[in-house]
Amino acid sequence: MWGIELQRHEDLTLARQIYQTLRVQMTAGQLQPGDVLPATRELARQLAVSRNTVYEAYEMLSAEGYIVSRPGSKTRVAPGLKLEQPPLAVETAPQLQPAYSYKADFKTGQPDLRCFPKHLWLQLLRRAAEQAPAAEWGYTGPAGLPALRAEIASWLLRSRGLTVLSQNIFVTAGATQALHLLAELLCVEGREIIVEDPCHSGMLRVLEQHGGHIRPVPVDHQGLQTENLHGKQACAVYVTPSHQFPLGGILPAGRRTELIRFARENDLYLIEDDYDSEFRYSGPPVAPLCSMDPARVIYVGTFSKILFPALRIGYVILPPDLHSSWRQLRTYADVQNPPFEQAALAEYLRTRKLDRHVQQMRRIYGHRRQVLLHTAAGLFGNTWQAWGDAAGLHLALEFPGRRFDQDFARHCKEKGIRITPVEQHSICKGRHLAKLLLGYGHLDASEIISGIRLLHDHIQKQV
Amino acid sequence: MWGIELQRHEDLTLARQIYQTLRVQMTAGQLQPGDVLPATRELARQLAVSRNTVYEAYEMLSAEGYIVSRPGSKTRVAPGLKLEQPPLAVETAPQLQPAYSYKADFKTGQPDLRCFPKHLWLQLLRRAAEQAPAAEWGYTGPAGLPALRAEIASWLLRSRGLTVLSQNIFVTAGATQALHLLAELLCVEGREIIVEDPCHSGMLRVLEQHGGHIRPVPVDHQGLQTENLHGKQACAVYVTPSHQFPLGGILPAGRRTELIRFARENDLYLIEDDYDSEFRYSGPPVAPLCSMDPARVIYVGTFSKILFPALRIGYVILPPDLHSSWRQLRTYADVQNPPFEQAALAEYLRTRKLDRHVQQMRRIYGHRRQVLLHTAAGLFGNTWQAWGDAAGLHLALEFPGRRFDQDFARHCKEKGIRITPVEQHSICKGRHLAKLLLGYGHLDASEIISGIRLLHDHIQKQV
Repeated sequence: MWGIELQRHEDLTLARQIYQTLRVQMTAGQLQPGDVLPATRELARQLAVSRNTVYEAYEMLSAEGYIVSRPGSKTRVAPGLKLEQPPLAVETAPQLQPAYSYKADFKTGQPDLRCFPKHLWLQLLRRAAEQAPAAEWGYTGPAGLPALRAEIASWLLRSRGLTVLSQNIFVTAGATQALHLLAELLCVEGREIIVEDPCHSGMLRVLEQHGGHIRPVPVDHQGLQTENLHGKQACAVYVTPSHQFPLGGILPAGRRTELIRFARENDLYLIEDDYDSEFRYSGPPVAPLCSMDPARVIYVGTFSKILFPALRIGYVILPPDLHSSWRQLRTYADVQNPPFEQAALAEYLRTRKLDRHVQQMRRIYGHRRQVLLHTAAGLFGNTWQAWGDAAGLHLALEFPGRRFDQDFARHCKEKGIRITPVEQHSICKGRHLAKLLLGYGHLDASEIISGIRLLHDHIQKQV
Repeated sequence: MWGIELQRHEDLTLARQIYQTLRVQMTAGQLQPGDVLPATRELARQLAVSRNTVYEAYEMLSAEGYIVSRPGSKTRVAPGLKLEQPPLAVETAPQLQPAYSYKADFKTGQPDLRCFPKHLWLQLLRRAAEQAPAAEWGYTGPAGLPALRAEIASWLLRSRGLTVLSQNIFVTAGATQALHLLAELLCVEGREIIVEDPCHSGMLRVLEQHGGHIRPVPVDHQGLQTENLHGKQACAVYVTPSHQFPLGGILPAGRRTELIRFARENDLYLIEDDYDSEFRYSGPPVAPLCSMDPARVIYVGTFSKILFPALRIGYVILPPDLHSSWRQLRTYADVQNPPFEQAALAEYLRTRKLDRHVQQMRRIYGHRRQVLLHTAAGLFGNTWQAWGDAAGLHLALEFPGRRFDQDFARHCKEKGIRITPVEQHSICKGRHLAKLLLGYGHLDASEIISGIRLLHDHIQKQV
């Protein structure tokens, strides 16, 4: 009756089914403007449903303006409902999750999640949520929880000797978001962002997203070659001075001084991305560039690599003149971080559990790095050299005379090896063809050894 | 000795203190390029610390390029370290948190956090985190957890009769982020975003952030006046068809049809913000505009108002042709949502606990709305009228002949009353001066009654 076929569908009420069928008939033109609808009693009888059900369906149609009914007169279809063509069908093929399983997976930037003290973390998280005052279930502000900002300040002093006021620390949803908002904050139409070349291709995309013009400046074994900094057209410089990504150099003091001078002369900000300097194996973490001039350097830190990526907590240290624009930007970007993870992290820092975890992981990662170097030496002889400072979760290896390009990476993938040519992070192509990047943080010793063996076999065959 | 004063500082190692003092001397020019540093043994004796401590400090200075030492020769200060002027001191006054306490707080968009089943939620959260596979502690992708996307699809069918494939649902860090990314996705240089006027001022700021030109189209008691839609210059229309913010109208079917037609003719997208339609007191939630043409309408939903704002989970329903750009945008904005809350929410949905919570809150909020209307009727007689559909967590009241502007809001604040004139959300000023917005979701009956009394006293005095 009326083309309505009711189904005892567990998720859709009968009223909703009646409503939907009639609605489709009106927009498709089967029911025309002015057409009279049956009385609720009548339709209920025909469909063998209660009169209330039909009444509810009519109420919905009426609230949304599909039908017009006045006391004492019949219920009619409203005018102007027909759409010229039916809505396009929206269909896509089901998404296939590429569950590709590598035999040797040297992807970069991956901490070992197996070593993270999950149980302890979950305890802290539960306690933080249980103890959170009611207000923390509402909006707690774009800067982050005060307790976490204070603990980050204290952690920066302990781990890097960096003195920073907690009010200059702004919590973010990871380092990516920090950079995303900084690009929005600092980008000026027609001016350039200076970046290292090579530079993390993901971060480069973040900076480009805002239409920033990118000016690459080459990198050597000591990081950014500051003698190539010039031009008055820049609005910011993005650097990784503690451990250049991907080549691993520590920016030396002289170049740091030049960078600061350049920033002052050109009235711009330096963005210092300190993505993994906790894990330095030959000494304490390098001092942040930020300590040389906190009014010119914006420091970006993250806990993704120390704890786990899913945490989504990072931070920026901002000079006071940027605070209010930052608050606005963050508010209108995504309001704030969820509070419970923030509170749990504050407690993890306050009780020095983070310090102990970093210490332990530094030992583990340092050992893995040794295993990698040792295995490579055994298999590749003296045909290669390692780049950069002994730090972080990845290593750049150079094989002079070799050519590692996209094709090489693809062939590796076919053999079950995930590996990144440095070239993939190069802006001006062709200068780093002989270098490969190997992430080792997430692999244990035996995985590293078998991985390097696979890689060796593959490279040998190519000759 | 050497100006180094060591302090048994619990957070800063002695080596770090030596390093920092020497570094300051070099950048300030007290130590000049080429100056010879004392031997480690010598300095250790002078400072009464172990030789290893001094060695560690020198290692840091050397790694960072402050000093140069070669086997068999003395350790010297590196060239080019002096900065022309000392870094600017960075100081700000401590931030004062405005802990202003209102006697009557009619702020809008605030659910009652006292009614949320926190204990149950924390149980789900803990279980979700405990049961999360290792991979979920890493990166789980910009679209959101598949389980949550499927549960949202099923919830949309149950609650609004909306049929949507879970692969078209993308989880976001709240509705604000959804809009932030949509503005980035859809904004085209030189084209306009059409918005309702009045329109939520916060959301307007989100859209403007990307330099989008805003074209306001007026709203009446039925929402957007689609007869005023014209021009080929628009790239998107932002609407709240289920419950116009702030005036509360339901967009009738005829206007919906016109909107869809406008979108098709001008090849643009409609952004449908469904911020609170779960809470409809006179019938089931209004059907989303999205159901009329899923290829033209992008639906934005949120759980902030149903559960709690700190959750930071919302979602968008996107037509397939926008999927890949969205994934990119989200990846380079902040990568993804944290996974455990997503998993907990999926479970909360799967077990129909959300349905029960919404049902319960609908009763509570509906009652509060009645109390508000009843109290206002008792005190203000027939000098006012309510706007909009019986839905949501706020009400727009009109007092013909009155003038509620910023000054009025400020005077109210002085009396301890937080209230928003509709004018604050108006783009073209002056058309809604007689209307006030009252958020009531977070207030219990007695708070509402005493709040309306205070407001009444204040308004009477003003005459």
